[in-house]
Amino acid sequence: MLTLDKIYHAAFILKDVARRTDLIAAPGLGCKGEVYLKTENLQVTGSFKLRGAYYKISQLTEDEKARGIVACSAGNHAQGVALAATKNGIPSTICMPDGAPISKVEATKRLGATVKLVKGGYDDAYEYACKLQAETGATFIHPFDDDEVIAGQGTIGLEILDQLSDVDAVLVPIGGGGLASGVAFAIKKLRPEVKVYGVQAAGAPSMLNSLQTHSQQTLELVSTFADGIAVKRPGNTTFNMVEQYVDAVVTVSEDEIAAAILALIEKQKLIAEGAGAVGVAAAMFHKVDLAGKKAVCLVSGGNIDVNILSRVITRGLVMSGRNANLMIALEDKPGQLQGVSEIISHCGGNVVSVHHDRGDTSMAITSCFLKLGLETRDHTQIEEIRQALTEAGFHLVSERV
Amino acid sequence: MLTLDKIYHAAFILKDVARRTDLIAAPGLGCKGEVYLKTENLQVTGSFKLRGAYYKISQLTEDEKARGIVACSAGNHAQGVALAATKNGIPSTICMPDGAPISKVEATKRLGATVKLVKGGYDDAYEYACKLQAETGATFIHPFDDDEVIAGQGTIGLEILDQLSDVDAVLVPIGGGGLASGVAFAIKKLRPEVKVYGVQAAGAPSMLNSLQTHSQQTLELVSTFADGIAVKRPGNTTFNMVEQYVDAVVTVSEDEIAAAILALIEKQKLIAEGAGAVGVAAAMFHKVDLAGKKAVCLVSGGNIDVNILSRVITRGLVMSGRNANLMIALEDKPGQLQGVSEIISHCGGNVVSVHHDRGDTSMAITSCFLKLGLETRDHTQIEEIRQALTEAGFHLVSERV
Repeated sequence: MLTLDKIYHAAFILKDVARRTDLIAAPGLGCKGEVYLKTENLQVTGSFKLRGAYYKISQLTEDEKARGIVACSAGNHAQGVALAATKNGIPSTICMPDGAPISKVEATKRLGATVKLVKGGYDDAYEYACKLQAETGATFIHPFDDDEVIAGQGTIGLEILDQLSDVDAVLVPIGGGGLASGVAFAIKKLRPEVKVYGVQAAGAPSMLNSLQTHSQQTLELVSTFADGIAVKRPGNTTFNMVEQYVDAVVTVSEDEIAAAILALIEKQKLIAEGAGAVGVAAAMFHKVDLAGKKAVCLVSGGNIDVNILSRVITRGLVMSGRNANLMIALEDKPGQLQGVSEIISHCGGNVVSVHHDRGDTSMAITSCFLKLGLETRDHTQIEEIRQALTEAGFHLVSERV
Repeated sequence: MLTLDKIYHAAFILKDVARRTDLIAAPGLGCKGEVYLKTENLQVTGSFKLRGAYYKISQLTEDEKARGIVACSAGNHAQGVALAATKNGIPSTICMPDGAPISKVEATKRLGATVKLVKGGYDDAYEYACKLQAETGATFIHPFDDDEVIAGQGTIGLEILDQLSDVDAVLVPIGGGGLASGVAFAIKKLRPEVKVYGVQAAGAPSMLNSLQTHSQQTLELVSTFADGIAVKRPGNTTFNMVEQYVDAVVTVSEDEIAAAILALIEKQKLIAEGAGAVGVAAAMFHKVDLAGKKAVCLVSGGNIDVNILSRVITRGLVMSGRNANLMIALEDKPGQLQGVSEIISHCGGNVVSVHHDRGDTSMAITSCFLKLGLETRDHTQIEEIRQALTEAGFHLVSERV
């Protein structure tokens, strides 16, 4: 049974292990109300998961500790368990899907765990971990459906109330629901008038579906780049706690998550992973009414693969008019490329890539496509360039990319 | 004259304006010693500049305030002055070079300043600002060569000593020298045994050159993407103070700065601009002996243009083996592309771009170039792919890209 006492105890145990992460005002994100970020992306291991894993492991019996620890995770829970086990002097084996980013695998190993790469996805790794647990009798650390784990995450709720005593609303990412359960429980027990909102990726709304049908639902498929909250089914405990303590659950789209990540980079100088940015996305895109309110978005983690980050930035640059792709149908005669270049340069655009394709069979034999990648200031400048090119007689093929 | 009293007074004045930014342990950066980051990139306005500008403006006489403020900056000082002036109820005019990133111009406007875009570079903007000052009698706020500005920056030194009382060394970026002067003065007056190192970009070593010749030198040209420290000549006061209080000045290359930015993103979830990352670069690449020491790298700011950031990440991904470019000379016959794709896929590589060029005149008429962009795990995997392709009879053109 979760109690406030247990959360206070977790806070005491975590005092010298987890960072009391900063609460940072974020006036530049264009949210309504006064928005603050609880920066668990700056937590040791790059996510809040250390809190629950460490508290759980610290509370094991000597016998449970002696049997070693096994866990299953595609990322953040892996690092949390690895560090917590190592700090407690316990060997740990973490089962990870073999498609997990090498950076997360390496980080988990560096924290002292033995990593078993399992062919397939998260579910396969979970099955393997259960088998391993049965065979070895090791102690299994669940990523969210566990009172001690939830109590550890709940310490964030205590810190938020301490750091912003007149907070009106808290936005928390939901995957399995452990974080939301702990934070909502702590806050509602102490300050029931504070609203707690859960946020899921629209491509993985397992908790929302479950709440709507008043019973745990299992998704066939989850589809989101926010891998930290791509969970098919909420836990038993977490479903009941979210139903009881969370005021509402909302969802955000992939593009909204990407826009939030880019805004956090530009305005707040913080890296969030997809799961970590959903609370900010919900605030930025007004999924919850925050007008006139003081709200805390819990940025739960920052462990994003750099290749993904690079794509998010690229997409964000195009969406915000800082990059543009143009496709121009040219007559295949000398001087055409120069003409186009001159116009773009005159408008202040910066050409970063050129692809000149004469092989496209959909074109007349004397014509060709010119594909250009540009760095631009904003949508207005792109429009100026498009207009200047059109006025000079060039034929732009795609209206927008 | 700068005094410790003045720095303490600045700390008092800044109490409710500037954030007391977190000091965060950074064990994952691969530095020797125990490295901490003073996160001034998370300061209001995204850099430390607010501190000096605000304290300076708060200390103006009523007459000086009434005449309004003029300043000149390509970036961080602009935002610091704009916010400080607005908070003190004083109109400000900031002269910025017209090539300044639109994001910085917009941020400065949002903070309440009138922005004059001046054709040319920083020097042209500076000249224009001086002219404007002479015409209007407004009060000019120098970005670094000013005792009050230096005192404001010096408050960071006080905070570092408070946050890590047994610090052994502090690494501070140097452009004009205001930050280094303030921080070094505060630290040496209180704890003379703590080493203070200045770090410059190798492409803009104006302070280092000046120290070596014992007189202020002016660079003909500065060449670095760390625009915040691309300063041609140190100030009078700052040169003298750095000579007196800073133990040594070292430089870092552009690639080292880029690697530091990428490491801060991946390991610490923090965005630093080029100037903000030079201290970390110096620690990562062992420009200073930190073995067995507790060192603080001052991450001075995070206002990096996202287009530049995107390029830094791209370059970093290639350098660390997470992205690779392959160029393959193919015979121009069916099935070749499929053969290559199969091998890459078998090795676990992920093809993200394909460029098939038959028009290259340096090739035999029956041959063509295939350029591939890949997402990879590490250099080892790239080597595996290269070897598998070679063994299958494909001819790789470039050895490394």
